[in-house]
Amino acid sequence: MKLISGGVCAAKGFAANGIHCGIRKNKSKRDLALIYSEVPASAAAVYTTNLVKGAPLAVTKRHLMNGIAQAVICNSGNANTCNANGIEIAEQMGELLAKELKIDAKDVIVASTGVIGLPLDIAPIAAGIPSLVAGLGNKSVEAAEGIMTTDTRLKEVAVSFEIGGKTCSLGGIAKGSGMIHPNMATMLVFITTDCAISPAMLQKALSTDVQTTFNMVSVDGDTSTNDMVAVLANGMAGNDCIDAEGEAFDSFMKALNTVTVALCRRIAADGEGATKLLECSVSGAKDEATAKTVAKAVVCSSLTKAAMFGADANWGRVLCAIGYSGADVDVNGVDVSFVSPKGEILVCQKGAGVAFSEETAKEILLENEIEIRITLSDGQGSATAWGCDLTYEYVKINGDYRT
Amino acid sequence: MKLISGGVCAAKGFAANGIHCGIRKNKSKRDLALIYSEVPASAAAVYTTNLVKGAPLAVTKRHLMNGIAQAVICNSGNANTCNANGIEIAEQMGELLAKELKIDAKDVIVASTGVIGLPLDIAPIAAGIPSLVAGLGNKSVEAAEGIMTTDTRLKEVAVSFEIGGKTCSLGGIAKGSGMIHPNMATMLVFITTDCAISPAMLQKALSTDVQTTFNMVSVDGDTSTNDMVAVLANGMAGNDCIDAEGEAFDSFMKALNTVTVALCRRIAADGEGATKLLECSVSGAKDEATAKTVAKAVVCSSLTKAAMFGADANWGRVLCAIGYSGADVDVNGVDVSFVSPKGEILVCQKGAGVAFSEETAKEILLENEIEIRITLSDGQGSATAWGCDLTYEYVKINGDYRT
Repeated sequence: MKLISGGVCAAKGFAANGIHCGIRKNKSKRDLALIYSEVPASAAAVYTTNLVKGAPLAVTKRHLMNGIAQAVICNSGNANTCNANGIEIAEQMGELLAKELKIDAKDVIVASTGVIGLPLDIAPIAAGIPSLVAGLGNKSVEAAEGIMTTDTRLKEVAVSFEIGGKTCSLGGIAKGSGMIHPNMATMLVFITTDCAISPAMLQKALSTDVQTTFNMVSVDGDTSTNDMVAVLANGMAGNDCIDAEGEAFDSFMKALNTVTVALCRRIAADGEGATKLLECSVSGAKDEATAKTVAKAVVCSSLTKAAMFGADANWGRVLCAIGYSGADVDVNGVDVSFVSPKGEILVCQKGAGVAFSEETAKEILLENEIEIRITLSDGQGSATAWGCDLTYEYVKINGDYRT
Repeated sequence: MKLISGGVCAAKGFAANGIHCGIRKNKSKRDLALIYSEVPASAAAVYTTNLVKGAPLAVTKRHLMNGIAQAVICNSGNANTCNANGIEIAEQMGELLAKELKIDAKDVIVASTGVIGLPLDIAPIAAGIPSLVAGLGNKSVEAAEGIMTTDTRLKEVAVSFEIGGKTCSLGGIAKGSGMIHPNMATMLVFITTDCAISPAMLQKALSTDVQTTFNMVSVDGDTSTNDMVAVLANGMAGNDCIDAEGEAFDSFMKALNTVTVALCRRIAADGEGATKLLECSVSGAKDEATAKTVAKAVVCSSLTKAAMFGADANWGRVLCAIGYSGADVDVNGVDVSFVSPKGEILVCQKGAGVAFSEETAKEILLENEIEIRITLSDGQGSATAWGCDLTYEYVKINGDYRT
């Protein structure tokens, strides 16, 4: 497997585009994105568990009941959530696009991201769709830009891999910066592949993968109303269609996981206001579920996140988070170290402090990727969670998000 | 019932003091507090559910097994948590104080608050105890100052009330600013009363009360390792001892609740970096547990907290938090309004936005006490939770807490 360029256009038969249609006031920001497959593709998706759900999710869920899709349309600047006419608008987005692309409206995945509770005007979208479609090409970057909200960095990853002698590609784009604490699904992620795989196996691959990837990311503990991860697999690589578990499925899972983990890291690193990516790795837990609970509690702890912003080796915050996580842990068997490209420093052993150089700790923690390594003494379970530091900028961004 | 002055010295037979003994470097900050009852008192306490527990909690728990105590000693500047010799030091604190006061060491409640994982030196405490005891008097303020960490405001409340023709007093002091998300117990709160009540009924009153008071406060979602609420009731008011439920117990509960709710509000308002007290009131829920879950999710939402800091009427953040709270709620029957001394403004009705004046909303939200009023359409359950806004200052305080 190797990393390649091209994002959602890396796989054969996919094109994309992103334009400014006028939902956002700032004309230099794209606000409408399209991903298109030349042929109908197997499709799978997972969605937010928030009871308050964006209208596009209901429409997409209905469209994906047959496991087939051919295009994704997504706007930014407005979540189309908590609006009386939300479903109607989301359906119109799908229908207008389908008409322009000459495909079935039921084969369109519809998504929106942005402010909640503001009616979404269909007019700029309707006006923009012709040029959105006319401009389709090798434009993964433009599509990735079109779904960004408070994101500061573009998130795009692709890999190529072999299945049965055929070269397949799989790539994705993501948006996500605030309101990130996925549960069963997450933020907006669109993945395309030319690998041939049945809708059922594609859904199985995605649903399994998110448990250790997107569901282990948290920026601020707030689970979005519009989270969605969708994958399109159009089969144009020409491999024998994967319709059961086995070696080919494992290869596919590995490629998918490489892309999703890379996107998770990018989403966490670009968390609202973030200056650092935090990775919390837990080993020695009673079981995997316990390790996950601990890892997630640590990356969610406001106090730990603020300490990391300040490059302060305040490991008491980490112990505190482990203690209130609800996980069954022997707190007298906890080791903690901080790791970065500058090295590793042990700060807590068997639940109590050890002497360490504050100077070395500072040097390690001043890096922009920090691993909080927790070793428990309870068993073999391990897990990783991703998050970011808590900064002034996060407060600034969210103190006046709407204006 | 009426509000009176005097804090923990309002009730007959109680004296207090607070001094700087040298645990903190800043000599103008008191770091050792004492509360003393002339006679042994009924005593009850609740503690943090964090698995990582401060050593003083273990010692206090043991001392309170007989339901009797006569003094409270508490230092700030060091939590005496995650230290190999923690229990030994906490025991020494109790023994040294008992010797100076000529009381039984088992009748001392020991508490500590401050940095986790730094060995606590007994020397300054041992040296300070004689003057701490010698200076005992009507010094609730000094004791309240002695337990403060990042608190900016002193928290002290007292009431007088009648039981069977006798006037009783009940007062408390509290510290708590960060690491506040109590579960079954909370921060540090010490309450004294001259009401005569059995240890069992005192424990019952406290354990019941905290469910709707301290357990409904959150500053940052981090449950402390050293939370404790302790009450001493020395019986010197001369009322018939309350040893069962009934009218007298109800009066006592009411007085206790008045003091605890006032302390909750003060703790939330003085949350680290806070500029506003947030009160989330929920009514119309399926049941009380559901109302509590909703209220707490809203005051814990980083996005809602940051929006309140910015006086931004971003009610979508409130709906989002209700949606991910895990509570069983009909999201199409949710009304939300913002209330402050400047008035009330309805921003969401039946789960969707309503037209409202942004100007009026801003005026309401610029106040420093904001109620987020949520009306559900599912039943009769109601609850209130307290929190504060999320500010630059919170990040600053916690970016470099230890130095």
